[in-house]
Amino acid sequence: MAWKNRDVVSIDDFSKEDLEALFKKTDEYEHSYPSGILKGKIIGNIFLEYSTRTRVSFEVAAKRLGAEVINLVAEYSSIKKGESLYDTLKMMDIYSDLLVIRSPIEGTARFASDVCKHPVINAGDGYLNHPTQAMIDLYTIRKLKGRLDDLRIGVCGDLRYGRAAVSFMFGVAKYSNKIYAISPAQLSMREDVKNKLTEIGAYFVETNSLEEVLPELDVLYVTRIQKERFPDIAEYEKVKGSYKVDLKTLQNSKRDLIVMHPLPRVDELSYEIDNTPMQAYFKQAELGVYIRMALLSLILVGE
Amino acid sequence: MAWKNRDVVSIDDFSKEDLEALFKKTDEYEHSYPSGILKGKIIGNIFLEYSTRTRVSFEVAAKRLGAEVINLVAEYSSIKKGESLYDTLKMMDIYSDLLVIRSPIEGTARFASDVCKHPVINAGDGYLNHPTQAMIDLYTIRKLKGRLDDLRIGVCGDLRYGRAAVSFMFGVAKYSNKIYAISPAQLSMREDVKNKLTEIGAYFVETNSLEEVLPELDVLYVTRIQKERFPDIAEYEKVKGSYKVDLKTLQNSKRDLIVMHPLPRVDELSYEIDNTPMQAYFKQAELGVYIRMALLSLILVGE
Amino acid sequence: MAWKNRDVVSIDDFSKEDLEALFKKTDEYEHSYPSGILKGKIIGNIFLEYSTRTRVSFEVAAKRLGAEVINLVAEYSSIKKGESLYDTLKMMDIYSDLLVIRSPIEGTARFASDVCKHPVINAGDGYLNHPTQAMIDLYTIRKLKGRLDDLRIGVCGDLRYGRAAVSFMFGVAKYSNKIYAISPAQLSMREDVKNKLTEIGAYFVETNSLEEVLPELDVLYVTRIQKERFPDIAEYEKVKGSYKVDLKTLQNSKRDLIVMHPLPRVDELSYEIDNTPMQAYFKQAELGVYIRMALLSLILVGE
Repeated sequence: MAWKNRDVVSIDDFSKEDLEALFKKTDEYEHSYPSGILKGKIIGNIFLEYSTRTRVSFEVAAKRLGAEVINLVAEYSSIKKGESLYDTLKMMDIYSDLLVIRSPIEGTARFASDVCKHPVINAGDGYLNHPTQAMIDLYTIRKLKGRLDDLRIGVCGDLRYGRAAVSFMFGVAKYSNKIYAISPAQLSMREDVKNKLTEIGAYFVETNSLEEVLPELDVLYVTRIQKERFPDIAEYEKVKGSYKVDLKTLQNSKRDLIVMHPLPRVDELSYEIDNTPMQAYFKQAELGVYIRMALLSLILVGE
Repeated sequence: MAWKNRDVVSIDDFSKEDLEALFKKTDEYEHSYPSGILKGKIIGNIFLEYSTRTRVSFEVAAKRLGAEVINLVAEYSSIKKGESLYDTLKMMDIYSDLLVIRSPIEGTARFASDVCKHPVINAGDGYLNHPTQAMIDLYTIRKLKGRLDDLRIGVCGDLRYGRAAVSFMFGVAKYSNKIYAISPAQLSMREDVKNKLTEIGAYFVETNSLEEVLPELDVLYVTRIQKERFPDIAEYEKVKGSYKVDLKTLQNSKRDLIVMHPLPRVDELSYEIDNTPMQAYFKQAELGVYIRMALLSLILVGE
Repeated sequence: MAWKNRDVVSIDDFSKEDLEALFKKTDEYEHSYPSGILKGKIIGNIFLEYSTRTRVSFEVAAKRLGAEVINLVAEYSSIKKGESLYDTLKMMDIYSDLLVIRSPIEGTARFASDVCKHPVINAGDGYLNHPTQAMIDLYTIRKLKGRLDDLRIGVCGDLRYGRAAVSFMFGVAKYSNKIYAISPAQLSMREDVKNKLTEIGAYFVETNSLEEVLPELDVLYVTRIQKERFPDIAEYEKVKGSYKVDLKTLQNSKRDLIVMHPLPRVDELSYEIDNTPMQAYFKQAELGVYIRMALLSLILVGE
């Protein structure tokens, strides 16, 4: 399936071949990119939730390729006057050539892709989907490990509310890997997520002990416990600080373990790791711009 | 009177000839536009009130023609440190080649046009003036009806606080049309508005029954009851939901009635109409960008 | 010391030769500037505090030279999710070619310059440093007075919390001038500021009477009492309105006195002065864009 005009709603919608085409384009753009290829195009950013990295990196990606960006944040828009999301989308669809949308509500991007004539990229919605983050994560592994198969991958943290972690697992499950889902009981994967992983043939085990599985791991993906997603703050208080990855935690790791994190971090990932060869999270942030440049280019121009 | 360097404060300031020149330029830009004509120009957007469509469409218009845009919203500016509007305007006037201003306060744009050396476009202020919206509305009628005269035009909703509705009436009153001003008593036109319409020779009648006049209408312009403009929320509660336009309401309309709305809507205009040939409001939003491109170009370049 | 890749943290870091090179470049840009010289460059604006003039003028400066701008304001970013400034800086450093940062906290820009690989420009932090404002102020004097030496310069207002005033004094202290530090006792200079001025050989006197020293002055630099910096609002209430510069205040001034102000003003500087030949504050705002263009160009391109 070609990339031209395609919506990016969930990592599930993309085959290994699709992803390989994206990674090849990203490789190319890392070396050099056509700075005027999106000239005259307008990217509409709709952010209904806080974001730094995702919004800024889409904006940088667009501008590096010559596109213009229109930012819409909920607080300054007619959403405040009671305008429906439907009307906001119709309007932004009229003004833009491609829409990037982030929302706290599950299914927003799918809804947007139904409403809009122009392609829609999901910049994270609800607890399941953050497909461009998953693409970045896979590309980072491919780059640092030289392969996407035959890896033992720990995903540690909030697997219940964390869409980056969930999308990452669906991403690596496309390849032959073993996934260790590491979390306190209250933050373990939802049943629907587990069922779906099983359905697509993922090989995964659940545990609440990072210590136990650590020596096996090639990749450790850490995520933040996201205070803002807990329906009850008392539940958050119970689990906050329930894990912290630092040099001591990692002392029995493989020599070439890489530590990933979609960022932002709060205190689950120690600054001690920043200047070690294990650190891969700033690399993710850096490669994120190239993945998003490649996405915009493939979707808008088809190459 | 030429367009070059002209302020756009009120639809009243423009003759039919001025408008015809604008519409001709808009026709041209709908087909193709000179994407670099405003290169090097900086448009200063000053938004002291929420907006989506107006701000975004000015921004898109500017960027399509190669201009750069600076956005100033009250919440993030020195207005928070107690800076006067006068000083804010002086400063934005120094940094911009043209200013676009929106404000809740009547007369802000006129004041801005007095203070600033560069041209000022009123993007809506107070309860009277929203001239670029009126230009869009006239252009939409011209396009969909093929003429601006000899029409029976119903304007339904908040005619007391709604500047889009009021400016629209002053716009159509320039041509030979019959206006039906339809509203609950509490939201009827102010005396000064009626006096002025009479003064310029407008032919209008007031009614609170849409049902009664509907069969006559060629155009029905619906507006939102704007909660944020009521001095007393109790007054708003009395009138909210006092009219709602849906397919049932419109069953006795002319076959070629068009339904307009400046948007955003809340619940006064049913989604049922969206996919009928009567719907003209998304067309307004679409044509809005071209009107604003033409305006920027005529004012900054003179052609 | 060359300008290429240099951080701009404090006016103290710059010699008279450095400043002269900057002023020469600014002279040049006032007449004409190379509009594409920063094409492909991305300026990251990080504003952790309200600003209009500084943010907008950096944005205009960047855009006039062909650079793109990314704006990050605290309220819409992952700082709200608990992200550290360190991580925010690392991320913006990845996405930008140069960072501009404003913060209420003393030392933020120095910290940023340590963390970031790309050059950092301090757009004001804490109570001491606002180096680009000082550069603008010096350039304005050089332009209006034809020299930077042999002047009697009054600095009136909040010398305790006002970083613009403090940086201005450190700027003029580089040249042979006499400084009159005029303020109510509660807003007088801090000991560390006085010690440092003495250390670099500045010739200054303190007074609380503007009236007394006014007849001597060639330049009067007025600043706002900054409500937002007082730890205790009761202290603010005591001093607010303790001075006001108007035509009456200035009646015994030299004929060619110029009145400067970094703006915004509240009520310490009367509007009466705006249309007199003494007014230099709008000139400061105007020249500010050229100084910032010259800075971006010297730092990013080296010329």
